[in-house]
Amino acid sequence: MTFAKSDSMSIRERIVVPAREGRGVRLAAGDYVRIVDIEGQQIADTFAYNVNDVTEYHSAPHTRAVLSRLFPRVGEAFYTNRRNPVLTLVEDNSPGIHDMKIAACDIYRYQLPLPQGLAVEGWHASCQENCEKAMAGFGFEKVVVPQSINLFMDTPGLEDGRIAWLEAKTGPDDNVVLRAEMDCYLVVSSCPQDILVINATQPSPVAIEVLSAT
Amino acid sequence: MTFAKSDSMSIRERIVVPAREGRGVRLAAGDYVRIVDIEGQQIADTFAYNVNDVTEYHSAPHTRAVLSRLFPRVGEAFYTNRRNPVLTLVEDNSPGIHDMKIAACDIYRYQLPLPQGLAVEGWHASCQENCEKAMAGFGFEKVVVPQSINLFMDTPGLEDGRIAWLEAKTGPDDNVVLRAEMDCYLVVSSCPQDILVINATQPSPVAIEVLSAT
Repeated sequence: MTFAKSDSMSIRERIVVPAREGRGVRLAAGDYVRIVDIEGQQIADTFAYNVNDVTEYHSAPHTRAVLSRLFPRVGEAFYTNRRNPVLTLVEDNSPGIHDMKIAACDIYRYQLPLPQGLAVEGWHASCQENCEKAMAGFGFEKVVVPQSINLFMDTPGLEDGRIAWLEAKTGPDDNVVLRAEMDCYLVVSSCPQDILVINATQPSPVAIEVLSAT
Repeated sequence: MTFAKSDSMSIRERIVVPAREGRGVRLAAGDYVRIVDIEGQQIADTFAYNVNDVTEYHSAPHTRAVLSRLFPRVGEAFYTNRRNPVLTLVEDNSPGIHDMKIAACDIYRYQLPLPQGLAVEGWHASCQENCEKAMAGFGFEKVVVPQSINLFMDTPGLEDGRIAWLEAKTGPDDNVVLRAEMDCYLVVSSCPQDILVINATQPSPVAIEVLSAT
């Protein structure tokens, strides 16, 4: 399969996702979208829901099963919990390090005592809440938040079964380009994790750029 | 933490899960349960739901995040989507090869064309349907089926990012022992996958043994 090159396209809509926040955009099947790590070393937790039935959503374990891979390669798709393609990874203009093993951070992650949580006092922004808020903005107050596609996140599985939590390796303007394979709500959260080192302990904004053929 | 030895306990209830089917049992916090691969080379897809709120369930990506591991070691727990411990892996009387990366098989897996599915004509039993049926038996017609804990499944992630689908390495009566950490519905499905080699292409029964201190 061949794909249009994103640098031959113009930006139809650009949404800046402020540090620690989330934003959503409705995509039509065939739309191209670029997700940009503006300053570098920032994880973009990414989610997709079928516009016609939000109980169908991107799914990490189904994607792994379809592809027999831990993460799609360029040209391969992310699949839903009904095994339909929802997003294709069209370009990877980054070091190519991403994660699909770790749940989106949530309020439990921050507030619970160790080892479940990080023992933070009071409210803390989370990718789960960011996703819920973005979907509420589309009129869906209660959605399942699936395991996120953790773009730019460097949390490799090691030989001995451990998972390491490392700083993201991205530089400014590193990005991936996705193509929607169905009409979908795309949600991107600028991961607010500032206790572990994965965002270099300093969350920063990301951008969602919906592209048009020029 | 120390645990009672399961061979010092008696079997309070034994449920044989026929090949290709699923069964559920309600556990109280503190109960021990043994899941047995009766004939060998059979995967047991395992699920757990909080009795008091079935929107809380065991979660593979949250378990990985809490433990910083791909799979719990003996003495470690599986956690829920709210990061509470739900089941502890107390003993592993098997080769110790299990999976938590791959979604439960479902009707889409069997019926869709390649690569999403296996192009089976007509109905085929699946772990997803087995879980749904077991939970319906407890009065819950609509549950989220989380990514299963695939006991005895040998589908390693390889160095190059691929996942291999291998025959289960278990022999007759290999088993694991779990302890419930909350009141929960435990569901076990004898995986009906008979096209890929993971069950040696011949699904066979498993057993759920609820144990009592003698």
